[in-house]
Amino acid sequence: MRIVGVADGGGITVGSLAGDGSVTLIAGLEEFWAAPAGWLARPPAGERVPKPRLVPPVLPGARVICIGLNYREHAEEGSYRDAGLPEHPTLFARWTQSLTVGGAPIPVPRDEEGLDWEGEIVAWVGRSLADADPETALAAVVGYSTFNDVTARRAQKLTSQWILGKNADSSGPLGPMVPAAEVGDLRDGLRVRTRVNGEIVQDGNTTDMVYPVGETLAHISRTFTLRPGDLLATGTPAGVGYARTPQWLLQPGDVVEVEVDRLGVLRNPIVGPGHRLLSREPGQQGAA
Amino acid sequence: MRIVGVADGGGITVGSLAGDGSVTLIAGLEEFWAAPAGWLARPPAGERVPKPRLVPPVLPGARVICIGLNYREHAEEGSYRDAGLPEHPTLFARWTQSLTVGGAPIPVPRDEEGLDWEGEIVAWVGRSLADADPETALAAVVGYSTFNDVTARRAQKLTSQWILGKNADSSGPLGPMVPAAEVGDLRDGLRVRTRVNGEIVQDGNTTDMVYPVGETLAHISRTFTLRPGDLLATGTPAGVGYARTPQWLLQPGDVVEVEVDRLGVLRNPIVGPGHRLLSREPGQQGAA
Repeated sequence: MRIVGVADGGGITVGSLAGDGSVTLIAGLEEFWAAPAGWLARPPAGERVPKPRLVPPVLPGARVICIGLNYREHAEEGSYRDAGLPEHPTLFARWTQSLTVGGAPIPVPRDEEGLDWEGEIVAWVGRSLADADPETALAAVVGYSTFNDVTARRAQKLTSQWILGKNADSSGPLGPMVPAAEVGDLRDGLRVRTRVNGEIVQDGNTTDMVYPVGETLAHISRTFTLRPGDLLATGTPAGVGYARTPQWLLQPGDVVEVEVDRLGVLRNPIVGPGHRLLSREPGQQGAA
Repeated sequence: MRIVGVADGGGITVGSLAGDGSVTLIAGLEEFWAAPAGWLARPPAGERVPKPRLVPPVLPGARVICIGLNYREHAEEGSYRDAGLPEHPTLFARWTQSLTVGGAPIPVPRDEEGLDWEGEIVAWVGRSLADADPETALAAVVGYSTFNDVTARRAQKLTSQWILGKNADSSGPLGPMVPAAEVGDLRDGLRVRTRVNGEIVQDGNTTDMVYPVGETLAHISRTFTLRPGDLLATGTPAGVGYARTPQWLLQPGDVVEVEVDRLGVLRNPIVGPGHRLLSREPGQQGAA
Protein backbone atom coordinates (compact mmCIF):
# COMPACT_ATOMS: atom_id res chain seq x y z
CA MET A 1 0.00 0.00 0.00
CA ARG A 2 1.24 3.50 -0.84
CA ILE A 3 -0.33 6.19 1.33
CA VAL A 4 -0.60 9.69 -0.13
CA GLY A 5 -2.37 12.99 0.50
CA VAL A 6 -4.93 14.37 -1.94
CA ALA A 7 -5.63 18.12 -1.98
CA ASP A 8 -9.30 18.96 -2.41
CA GLY A 9 -10.12 22.62 -2.14
CA GLY A 10 -9.46 23.60 1.46
CA GLY A 11 -8.36 20.30 2.96
CA ILE A 12 -6.27 17.17 2.54
CA THR A 13 -7.62 13.61 2.42
CA VAL A 14 -5.41 10.55 2.94
CA GLY A 15 -5.70 7.77 0.39
CA SER A 16 -4.08 4.73 -1.20
CA LEU A 17 -2.26 5.22 -4.51
CA ALA A 18 -2.78 2.60 -7.22
CA GLY A 19 -0.41 1.70 -10.08
CA ASP A 20 -2.54 3.67 -12.56
CA GLY A 21 -2.12 6.90 -10.58
CA SER A 22 -5.62 6.88 -9.14
CA VAL A 23 -6.21 7.15 -5.39
CA THR A 24 -8.81 5.42 -3.24
CA LEU A 25 -9.60 7.74 -0.35
CA ILE A 26 -9.28 6.53 3.25
CA ALA A 27 -9.99 9.39 5.66
CA GLY A 28 -9.49 13.08 6.29
CA LEU A 29 -5.99 14.06 7.35
CA GLU A 30 -6.78 14.64 11.07
CA GLU A 31 -9.02 11.58 11.19
CA PHE A 32 -6.30 9.39 9.64
CA TRP A 33 -3.62 10.50 12.10
CA ALA A 34 -5.95 10.02 15.08
CA ALA A 35 -5.63 6.25 14.49
CA PRO A 36 -3.24 5.51 11.61
CA ALA A 37 -2.62 1.83 12.43
CA GLY A 38 -6.37 1.22 12.48
CA TRP A 39 -6.88 2.76 9.04
CA LEU A 40 -3.94 0.81 7.59
CA ALA A 41 -5.31 -2.48 8.94
CA ARG A 42 -8.40 -2.40 6.70
CA PRO A 43 -8.75 -1.93 2.94
CA PRO A 44 -9.42 1.63 1.73
CA ALA A 45 -13.15 2.02 1.27
CA GLY A 46 -13.62 5.61 0.12
CA GLU A 47 -14.21 7.32 -3.21
CA ARG A 48 -11.79 6.68 -6.10
CA VAL A 49 -10.11 9.82 -7.50
CA PRO A 50 -8.80 9.17 -11.04
CA LYS A 51 -6.54 12.23 -11.32
CA PRO A 52 -5.64 13.36 -7.80
CA ARG A 53 -3.50 16.38 -6.95
CA LEU A 54 -0.99 14.76 -4.58
CA VAL A 55 0.42 16.46 -1.49
CA PRO A 56 2.28 14.95 1.47
CA PRO A 57 -0.14 13.30 3.94
CA VAL A 58 1.40 15.48 6.65
CA LEU A 59 -0.33 17.28 9.52
CA PRO A 60 0.69 20.97 9.31
CA GLY A 61 1.83 20.90 12.95
CA ALA A 62 3.86 17.68 12.63
CA ARG A 63 7.52 17.85 13.55
CA VAL A 64 10.04 16.82 10.91
CA ILE A 65 13.01 15.75 13.00
CA CYS A 66 16.12 15.07 10.96
CA ILE A 67 19.26 13.14 11.92
CA GLY A 68 22.51 14.57 10.60
CA LEU A 69 25.61 12.44 10.16
CA ASN A 70 23.85 9.07 10.54
CA TYR A 71 25.83 7.01 8.04
CA ARG A 72 29.47 6.39 8.94
CA GLU A 73 30.95 7.30 5.54
CA HIS A 74 28.86 10.47 5.24
CA ALA A 75 30.00 11.64 8.69
CA GLU A 76 33.56 11.27 7.39
CA GLU A 77 33.15 13.20 4.12
CA GLY A 78 32.00 16.70 5.14
CA SER A 79 32.62 19.64 7.49
CA TYR A 80 32.38 17.43 10.60
CA ARG A 81 34.92 14.78 9.45
CA ASP A 82 37.45 15.63 12.16
CA ALA A 83 34.89 15.76 14.98
CA GLY A 84 34.50 11.99 15.35
CA LEU A 85 31.09 10.31 15.65
CA PRO A 86 28.99 12.13 18.25
CA GLU A 87 27.69 10.05 21.16
CA HIS A 88 24.10 11.15 20.47
CA PRO A 89 22.23 11.66 17.20
CA THR A 90 22.65 15.20 15.84
CA LEU A 91 19.07 16.41 15.40
CA PHE A 92 17.92 19.34 13.32
CA ALA A 93 14.50 20.64 12.31
CA ARG A 94 12.40 21.06 9.24
CA TRP A 95 9.02 22.68 9.26
CA THR A 96 6.30 20.95 7.26
CA GLN A 97 6.04 24.01 4.98
CA SER A 98 9.31 22.89 3.32
CA LEU A 99 7.80 19.53 2.28
CA THR A 100 6.50 18.63 -1.15
CA VAL A 101 5.97 15.54 -3.32
CA GLY A 102 7.71 13.72 -6.17
CA GLY A 103 7.42 15.61 -9.45
CA ALA A 104 7.32 19.03 -7.79
CA PRO A 105 9.93 21.50 -9.07
CA ILE A 106 12.53 22.56 -6.49
CA PRO A 107 13.72 26.17 -6.90
CA VAL A 108 17.32 27.21 -6.22
CA PRO A 109 17.26 30.29 -3.94
CA ARG A 110 18.89 33.35 -5.50
CA ASP A 111 21.94 33.41 -3.18
CA GLU A 112 22.85 29.72 -3.64
CA GLU A 113 25.29 28.36 -6.21
CA GLY A 114 22.99 25.33 -6.50
CA LEU A 115 21.30 22.79 -4.22
CA ASP A 116 22.72 19.62 -2.69
CA TRP A 117 21.01 16.22 -2.64
CA GLU A 118 20.56 14.02 0.42
CA GLY A 119 18.70 10.81 -0.37
CA GLU A 120 17.20 9.21 2.70
CA ILE A 121 14.33 7.46 4.46
CA VAL A 122 11.64 9.03 6.65
CA ALA A 123 9.95 7.07 9.45
CA TRP A 124 6.38 8.10 10.40
CA VAL A 125 5.39 8.02 14.07
CA GLY A 126 1.95 6.46 14.65
CA ARG A 127 1.48 6.70 18.42
CA SER A 128 2.33 9.16 21.21
CA LEU A 129 5.71 8.46 22.83
CA ALA A 130 7.02 9.95 26.08
CA ASP A 131 10.01 8.46 27.91
CA ALA A 132 9.64 5.41 25.64
CA ASP A 133 12.12 2.54 25.39
CA PRO A 134 13.60 1.77 21.94
CA GLU A 135 11.40 -1.29 21.31
CA THR A 136 8.19 0.60 22.09
CA ALA A 137 9.37 3.50 19.95
CA LEU A 138 10.18 1.28 16.97
CA ALA A 139 6.81 -0.47 17.29
CA ALA A 140 5.12 2.94 17.09
CA VAL A 141 6.46 3.54 13.56
CA VAL A 142 3.56 3.04 11.11
CA GLY A 143 5.40 3.54 7.85
CA TYR A 144 8.38 4.74 5.86
CA SER A 145 8.88 7.01 2.85
CA THR A 146 11.63 7.89 0.41
CA PHE A 147 12.86 11.44 1.15
CA ASN A 148 15.25 13.93 -0.36
CA ASP A 149 16.61 16.36 2.24
CA VAL A 150 17.58 18.91 -0.44
CA THR A 151 19.94 21.42 1.13
CA ALA A 152 20.91 25.05 0.52
CA ARG A 153 24.52 24.58 1.68
CA ARG A 154 25.50 28.24 1.76
CA ALA A 155 22.60 29.10 4.06
CA GLN A 156 23.17 25.93 6.12
CA LYS A 157 26.80 26.84 6.83
CA LEU A 158 26.39 30.56 7.61
CA THR A 159 26.32 29.91 11.37
CA SER A 160 26.61 27.00 13.79
CA GLN A 161 22.93 26.10 13.32
CA TRP A 162 21.76 24.46 10.11
CA ILE A 163 18.03 25.11 9.88
CA LEU A 164 17.94 28.05 7.44
CA GLY A 165 19.53 25.95 4.68
CA LYS A 166 17.31 22.98 5.52
CA ASN A 167 13.99 24.75 4.95
CA ALA A 168 14.17 26.29 1.49
CA ASP A 169 10.85 26.42 -0.38
CA SER A 170 9.73 22.98 -1.66
CA SER A 171 13.11 21.53 -0.67
CA GLY A 172 11.82 18.40 1.07
CA PRO A 173 10.14 16.03 -1.43
CA LEU A 174 8.57 13.06 0.29
CA GLY A 175 7.37 9.84 -1.35
CA PRO A 176 4.21 7.88 -0.48
CA MET A 177 4.19 6.22 2.95
CA VAL A 178 4.62 2.43 2.79
CA PRO A 179 3.23 0.65 5.88
CA ALA A 180 5.94 -0.57 8.26
CA ALA A 181 4.66 -4.15 7.98
CA GLU A 182 5.58 -4.14 4.25
CA VAL A 183 9.02 -2.64 4.89
CA GLY A 184 10.42 -4.61 7.83
CA ASP A 185 13.35 -3.43 9.96
CA LEU A 186 15.76 -0.88 8.44
CA ARG A 187 18.61 -2.66 10.25
CA ASP A 188 18.10 -5.64 7.91
CA GLY A 189 19.25 -3.44 5.05
CA LEU A 190 17.56 -1.23 2.49
CA ARG A 191 19.61 0.18 -0.36
CA VAL A 192 19.40 3.98 -0.74
CA ARG A 193 20.49 5.42 -4.09
CA THR A 194 20.49 8.97 -5.43
CA ARG A 195 20.85 9.79 -9.13
CA VAL A 196 21.43 13.14 -10.82
CA ASN A 197 20.39 13.16 -14.48
CA GLY A 198 20.63 9.37 -14.34
CA GLU A 199 24.13 9.19 -12.82
CA ILE A 200 24.42 7.46 -9.42
CA VAL A 201 25.82 9.87 -6.82
CA GLN A 202 24.87 8.08 -3.58
CA ASP A 203 24.66 4.33 -3.06
CA GLY A 204 24.31 3.41 0.60
CA ASN A 205 22.61 0.85 2.78
CA THR A 206 20.68 1.29 6.02
CA THR A 207 22.91 -1.36 7.62
CA ASP A 208 25.50 1.46 7.90
CA MET A 209 23.23 3.65 10.05
CA VAL A 210 24.81 4.78 13.31
CA TYR A 211 21.63 5.60 15.28
CA PRO A 212 18.72 3.20 14.68
CA VAL A 213 15.14 4.49 14.43
CA GLY A 214 13.87 3.02 17.72
CA GLU A 215 16.81 4.31 19.77
CA THR A 216 16.57 7.78 18.21
CA LEU A 217 12.82 8.14 18.79
CA ALA A 218 13.26 6.90 22.38
CA HIS A 219 16.02 9.47 22.89
CA ILE A 220 13.83 12.31 21.55
CA SER A 221 10.87 11.19 23.68
CA ARG A 222 12.91 11.84 26.85
CA THR A 223 12.67 15.57 26.05
CA PHE A 224 9.44 16.01 24.10
CA THR A 225 6.37 13.89 23.53
CA LEU A 226 6.20 12.53 20.01
CA ARG A 227 2.74 12.58 18.44
CA PRO A 228 1.10 10.59 15.62
CA GLY A 229 2.13 12.14 12.32
CA ASP A 230 5.58 13.30 13.45
CA LEU A 231 8.38 12.35 11.04
CA LEU A 232 11.95 11.23 11.59
CA ALA A 233 14.31 11.72 8.62
CA THR A 234 17.00 9.14 9.20
CA GLY A 235 20.02 10.76 7.54
CA THR A 236 21.85 10.40 4.25
CA PRO A 237 24.68 8.09 3.12
CA ALA A 238 27.99 9.30 1.64
CA GLY A 239 28.18 11.03 -1.72
CA VAL A 240 26.65 14.48 -1.22
CA GLY A 241 27.70 17.19 -3.66
CA TYR A 242 29.42 19.81 -1.51
CA ALA A 243 31.97 17.35 -0.15
CA ARG A 244 33.19 16.43 -3.65
CA THR A 245 36.25 17.84 -5.40
CA PRO A 246 35.21 19.79 -7.35
CA GLN A 247 31.93 20.57 -5.59
CA TRP A 248 28.84 19.39 -7.52
CA LEU A 249 25.52 21.10 -6.89
CA LEU A 250 22.12 20.74 -8.57
CA GLN A 251 21.35 23.38 -11.22
CA PRO A 252 18.08 24.44 -12.88
CA GLY A 253 17.32 21.83 -15.55
CA ASP A 254 18.75 18.93 -13.52
CA VAL A 255 16.60 16.01 -12.38
CA VAL A 256 17.34 14.39 -9.01
CA GLU A 257 16.04 10.94 -8.06
CA VAL A 258 16.14 9.00 -4.81
CA GLU A 259 15.38 5.30 -4.89
CA VAL A 260 14.96 3.14 -1.80
CA ASP A 261 14.27 -0.61 -1.76
CA ARG A 262 10.56 -1.32 -1.10
CA LEU A 263 9.78 2.43 -0.88
CA GLY A 264 10.12 3.46 -4.49
CA VAL A 265 11.58 6.29 -6.54
CA LEU A 266 11.18 10.03 -5.89
CA ARG A 267 12.03 12.24 -8.88
CA ASN A 268 12.16 16.06 -8.85
CA PRO A 269 13.29 18.67 -11.37
CA ILE A 270 15.39 21.63 -10.27
CA VAL A 271 14.28 25.10 -11.37
CA GLY A 272 15.55 28.66 -11.06
CA PRO A 273 14.87 31.20 -8.30
CA GLY A 274 12.11 32.87 -10.32
CA HIS A 275 9.95 29.82 -9.63
CA ARG A 276 10.07 30.36 -5.85
CA LEU A 277 6.88 32.31 -5.49
CA LEU A 278 5.07 30.37 -8.20
CA SER A 279 5.99 26.99 -6.75
CA ARG A 280 3.69 27.35 -3.73
CA GLU A 281 0.35 29.02 -3.27
CA PRO A 282 0.09 31.00 -0.02
CA GLY A 283 -1.68 29.02 2.65
CA GLN A 284 -1.46 25.82 0.61
CA GLN A 285 0.40 23.80 3.23
CA GLY A 286 2.88 21.42 1.70
CA ALA A 287 1.27 21.50 -1.72
CA ALA A 288 3.36 20.85 -4.80
CA MET B 1 -5.40 45.44 21.86
CA ARG B 2 -4.24 42.05 23.12
CA ILE B 3 -4.82 39.28 20.59
CA VAL B 4 -5.26 35.72 21.92
CA GLY B 5 -6.49 32.31 20.80
CA VAL B 6 -9.59 30.73 22.31
CA ALA B 7 -9.96 26.94 22.18
CA ASP B 8 -13.51 25.81 21.42
CA GLY B 9 -13.91 22.08 20.96
CA GLY B 10 -12.07 21.22 17.77
CA GLY B 11 -10.81 24.62 16.67
CA ILE B 12 -9.20 27.87 17.68
CA THR B 13 -10.78 31.32 17.31
CA VAL B 14 -8.77 34.53 17.50
CA GLY B 15 -10.07 37.26 19.78
CA SER B 16 -9.28 40.39 21.75
CA LEU B 17 -8.60 40.01 25.49
CA ALA B 18 -10.17 42.56 27.84
CA GLY B 19 -8.91 43.61 31.28
CA ASP B 20 -11.58 41.46 33.00
CA GLY B 21 -10.28 38.29 31.30
CA SER B 22 -13.14 38.04 28.82
CA VAL B 23 -12.47 37.77 25.08
CA THR B 24 -14.36 39.31 22.18
CA LEU B 25 -13.99 36.98 19.22
CA ILE B 26 -12.63 38.26 15.91
CA ALA B 27 -12.30 35.40 13.42
CA GLY B 28 -11.36 31.75 13.03
CA LEU B 29 -7.61 31.05 13.15
CA GLU B 30 -7.13 30.48 9.40
CA GLU B 31 -9.46 33.36 8.51
CA PHE B 32 -7.55 35.73 10.84
CA TRP B 33 -4.14 34.85 9.38
CA ALA B 34 -5.41 35.20 5.80
CA ALA B 35 -5.59 38.99 6.43
CA PRO B 36 -4.31 39.85 9.92
CA ALA B 37 -3.74 43.57 9.29
CA GLY B 38 -7.31 43.93 8.03
CA TRP B 39 -8.79 42.28 11.14
CA LEU B 40 -6.63 44.43 13.42
CA ALA B 41 -7.75 47.63 11.67
CA ARG B 42 -11.37 47.28 12.81
CA PRO B 43 -12.88 46.74 16.27
CA PRO B 44 -13.60 43.12 17.23
CA ALA B 45 -17.25 42.43 16.47
CA GLY B 46 -17.80 38.81 17.46
CA GLU B 47 -19.28 37.02 20.46
CA ARG B 48 -17.98 37.82 23.97
CA VAL B 49 -16.62 34.79 25.86
CA PRO B 50 -16.57 35.53 29.62
CA LYS B 51 -14.29 32.63 30.66
CA PRO B 52 -12.23 31.60 27.64
CA ARG B 53 -9.69 28.78 27.55
CA LEU B 54 -6.69 30.61 26.09
CA VAL B 55 -4.23 29.06 23.63
CA PRO B 56 -1.64 30.73 21.41
CA PRO B 57 -3.25 32.23 18.26
CA VAL B 58 -0.77 30.20 16.22
CA LEU B 59 -1.34 28.33 12.97
CA PRO B 60 -0.17 24.72 13.54
CA GLY B 61 2.08 24.91 10.46
CA ALA B 62 3.64 28.26 11.38
CA ARG B 63 7.40 28.39 11.69
CA VAL B 64 8.87 29.58 14.99
CA ILE B 65 12.26 30.90 13.93
CA CYS B 66 14.48 31.80 16.87
CA ILE B 67 17.60 33.97 16.93
CA GLY B 68 20.35 32.75 19.24
CA LEU B 69 22.96 35.13 20.65
CA ASN B 70 21.18 38.35 19.67
CA TYR B 71 22.10 40.54 22.65
CA ARG B 72 25.77 41.43 22.97
CA GLU B 73 26.15 40.61 26.67
CA HIS B 74 24.31 37.28 26.32
CA ALA B 75 26.59 36.25 23.44
CA GLU B 76 29.51 36.86 25.80
CA GLU B 77 28.23 34.88 28.79
CA GLY B 78 27.73 31.30 27.50
CA SER B 79 29.31 28.47 25.52
CA TYR B 80 29.91 30.69 22.47
CA ARG B 81 31.71 33.50 24.36
CA ASP B 82 35.04 32.86 22.59
CA ALA B 83 33.54 32.59 19.11
CA GLY B 84 33.00 36.33 18.58
CA LEU B 85 29.76 37.74 17.18
CA PRO B 86 28.75 35.80 14.07
CA GLU B 87 28.30 37.79 10.87
CA HIS B 88 24.78 36.42 10.37
CA PRO B 89 22.00 35.73 12.88
CA THR B 90 22.22 32.23 14.34
CA LEU B 91 18.79 30.74 13.63
CA PHE B 92 17.27 27.70 15.27
CA ALA B 93 13.81 26.14 15.14
CA ARG B 94 10.88 25.53 17.38
CA TRP B 95 7.83 23.64 16.29
CA THR B 96 4.46 25.14 17.29
CA GLN B 97 3.75 22.04 19.40
CA SER B 98 6.19 23.38 22.01
CA LEU B 99 4.19 26.61 22.46
CA THR B 100 1.78 27.35 25.28
CA VAL B 101 0.35 30.38 27.13
CA GLY B 102 0.94 32.29 30.36
CA GLY B 103 -0.25 30.35 33.40
CA ALA B 104 0.45 26.95 31.86
CA PRO B 105 2.72 24.69 33.93
CA ILE B 106 6.07 23.84 32.33
CA PRO B 107 7.33 20.34 33.16
CA VAL B 108 11.04 19.58 33.66
CA PRO B 109 11.95 16.53 31.53
CA ARG B 110 13.20 13.58 33.57
CA ASP B 111 16.84 13.79 32.36
CA GLU B 112 17.28 17.52 33.04
CA GLU B 113 18.62 19.04 36.25
CA GLY B 114 16.15 21.88 35.73
CA LEU B 115 15.10 24.31 33.00
CA ASP B 116 16.67 27.60 31.96
CA TRP B 117 14.82 30.87 31.33
CA GLU B 118 15.21 33.06 28.26
CA GLY B 119 12.93 36.09 28.38
CA GLU B 120 12.40 37.62 24.96
CA ILE B 121 10.11 39.17 22.36
CA VAL B 122 8.39 37.42 19.45
CA ALA B 123 7.55 39.26 16.21
CA TRP B 124 4.56 37.98 14.19
CA VAL B 125 4.80 38.03 10.39
CA GLY B 126 1.62 39.33 8.71
CA ARG B 127 2.43 39.11 4.98
CA SER B 128 4.31 36.75 2.66
CA LEU B 129 7.96 37.73 2.20
CA ALA B 130 10.36 36.40 -0.43
CA ASP B 131 13.65 38.15 -1.23
CA ALA B 132 12.33 41.12 0.76
CA ASP B 133 14.36 44.16 1.77
CA PRO B 134 14.60 45.01 5.51
CA GLU B 135 12.10 47.88 5.35
CA THR B 136 9.45 45.76 3.61
CA ALA B 137 10.10 42.93 6.05
CA LEU B 138 9.72 45.16 9.11
CA ALA B 139 6.52 46.66 7.68
CA ALA B 140 5.12 43.11 7.38
CA VAL B 141 5.30 42.58 11.16
CA VAL B 142 1.74 42.83 12.54
CA GLY B 143 2.47 42.42 16.23
CA TYR B 144 4.74 41.43 19.08
CA SER B 145 4.42 39.17 22.12
CA THR B 146 6.30 38.48 25.33
CA PHE B 147 7.96 35.04 25.06
CA ASN B 148 9.94 32.72 27.30
CA ASP B 149 12.24 30.42 25.29
CA VAL B 150 12.49 27.93 28.16
CA THR B 151 15.42 25.63 27.47
CA ALA B 152 16.42 22.08 28.42
CA ARG B 153 20.16 22.86 28.47
CA ARG B 154 21.39 19.27 28.77
CA ALA B 155 19.47 18.22 25.65
CA GLN B 156 20.42 21.45 23.84
CA LYS B 157 24.14 20.83 24.35
CA LEU B 158 24.29 17.10 23.53
CA THR B 159 25.38 17.77 19.94
CA SER B 160 26.22 20.74 17.70
CA GLN B 161 22.53 21.35 16.95
CA TRP B 162 20.26 22.86 19.61
CA ILE B 163 16.71 21.92 18.63
CA LEU B 164 16.07 18.96 20.96
CA GLY B 165 16.52 21.12 24.04
CA LYS B 166 14.48 23.94 22.49
CA ASN B 167 11.30 21.92 21.99
CA ALA B 168 10.47 20.34 25.35
CA ASP B 169 6.74 19.94 26.06
CA SER B 170 5.01 23.27 26.86
CA SER B 171 8.40 24.99 26.99
CA GLY B 172 7.49 28.02 24.89
CA PRO B 173 4.93 30.22 26.68
CA LEU B 174 3.76 33.09 24.52
CA GLY B 175 1.85 36.17 25.66
CA PRO B 176 -0.99 37.90 23.78
CA MET B 177 -0.04 39.60 20.51
CA VAL B 178 0.02 43.41 20.74
CA PRO B 179 -0.44 45.13 17.34
CA ALA B 180 2.80 46.57 15.95
CA ALA B 181 1.22 50.05 15.76
CA GLU B 182 0.88 50.04 19.58
CA VAL B 183 4.46 48.83 20.11
CA GLY B 184 6.57 50.93 17.76
CA ASP B 185 10.10 50.02 16.70
CA LEU B 186 12.09 47.65 18.95
CA ARG B 187 15.22 49.67 18.10
CA ASP B 188 13.76 52.58 20.13
CA GLY B 189 14.12 50.43 23.24
CA LEU B 190 11.86 48.05 25.13
CA ARG B 191 13.00 46.78 28.52
CA VAL B 192 12.97 42.96 28.86
CA ARG B 193 13.03 41.57 32.40
CA THR B 194 12.86 38.01 33.70
CA ARG B 195 12.09 37.19 37.34
CA VAL B 196 12.36 33.86 39.17
CA ASN B 197 10.19 33.74 42.30
CA GLY B 198 10.17 37.53 42.20
CA GLU B 199 13.94 38.00 41.88
CA ILE B 200 15.18 39.79 38.74
CA VAL B 201 17.53 37.52 36.74
CA GLN B 202 17.53 39.26 33.35
CA ASP B 203 17.21 43.00 32.74
CA GLY B 204 17.99 43.92 29.15
CA ASN B 205 16.88 46.37 26.52
CA THR B 206 16.15 45.83 22.84
CA THR B 207 18.54 48.68 22.01
CA ASP B 208 21.30 46.05 22.61
CA MET B 209 20.02 43.71 19.87
CA VAL B 210 22.65 42.74 17.31
CA TYR B 211 20.34 41.72 14.44
CA PRO B 212 17.20 43.88 14.03
CA VAL B 213 13.85 42.30 13.14
CA GLY B 214 13.59 43.72 9.60
CA GLU B 215 17.12 42.67 8.62
CA THR B 216 16.65 39.18 10.06
CA LEU B 217 13.33 38.55 8.30
CA ALA B 218 14.80 39.88 5.04
CA HIS B 219 17.78 37.51 5.47
CA ILE B 220 15.49 34.51 6.08
CA SER B 221 13.31 35.43 3.09
CA ARG B 222 16.31 34.97 0.77
CA THR B 223 16.11 31.23 1.48
CA PHE B 224 12.47 30.52 2.29
CA THR B 225 9.23 32.40 1.81
CA LEU B 226 7.83 33.69 5.08
CA ARG B 227 4.07 33.35 5.45
CA PRO B 228 1.46 35.17 7.57
CA GLY B 229 1.48 33.65 11.05
CA ASP B 230 5.19 32.78 11.09
CA LEU B 231 6.99 33.89 14.26
CA LEU B 232 10.44 35.31 14.89
CA ALA B 233 11.76 34.96 18.45
CA THR B 234 14.29 37.76 18.74
CA GLY B 235 16.73 36.35 21.29
CA THR B 236 17.37 36.82 25.00
CA PRO B 237 19.51 39.31 26.94
CA ALA B 238 22.24 38.35 29.42
CA GLY B 239 21.49 36.59 32.69
CA VAL B 240 20.47 33.04 31.77
CA GLY B 241 20.88 30.39 34.47
CA TYR B 242 23.40 27.93 33.02
CA ALA B 243 26.06 30.61 32.50
CA ARG B 244 26.02 31.58 36.21
CA THR B 245 28.44 30.40 38.87
CA PRO B 246 26.99 28.35 40.40
CA GLN B 247 24.51 27.34 37.70
CA TRP B 248 20.88 28.25 38.54
CA LEU B 249 18.09 26.29 36.87
CA LEU B 250 14.30 26.38 37.36
CA GLN B 251 12.93 23.64 39.65
CA PRO B 252 9.40 22.33 40.19
CA GLY B 253 7.61 24.83 42.44
CA ASP B 254 9.40 27.87 40.95
CA VAL B 255 7.51 30.60 39.13
CA VAL B 256 9.17 32.33 36.16
CA GLU B 257 7.98 35.67 34.79
CA VAL B 258 8.97 37.65 31.73
CA GLU B 259 7.93 41.31 31.52
CA VAL B 260 8.37 43.45 28.43
CA ASP B 261 7.43 47.14 28.12
CA ARG B 262 4.10 47.56 26.29
CA LEU B 263 3.71 43.77 25.87
CA GLY B 264 2.95 42.71 29.43
CA VAL B 265 3.89 39.98 31.87
CA LEU B 266 4.02 36.24 31.17
CA ARG B 267 4.04 34.06 34.30
CA ASN B 268 4.46 30.27 34.36
CA PRO B 269 4.91 27.73 37.15
CA ILE B 270 7.48 24.95 36.80
CA VAL B 271 6.34 21.38 37.54
CA GLY B 272 7.91 17.93 37.71
CA PRO B 273 8.36 15.40 34.90
CA GLY B 274 5.24 13.51 35.96
CA HIS B 275 3.17 16.39 34.57
CA ARG B 276 4.56 15.92 31.05
CA LEU B 277 1.78 13.77 29.67
CA LEU B 278 -0.93 15.54 31.64
CA SER B 279 0.15 18.98 30.52
CA ARG B 280 -0.99 18.44 26.94
CA GLU B 281 -3.89 16.55 25.47
CA PRO B 282 -2.96 14.59 22.34
CA GLY B 283 -3.92 16.50 19.22
CA GLN B 284 -4.61 19.66 21.20
CA GLN B 285 -2.16 21.84 19.34
CA GLY B 286 -0.53 24.39 21.58
CA ALA B 287 -3.14 24.08 24.31
CA ALA B 288 -2.22 24.81 27.89
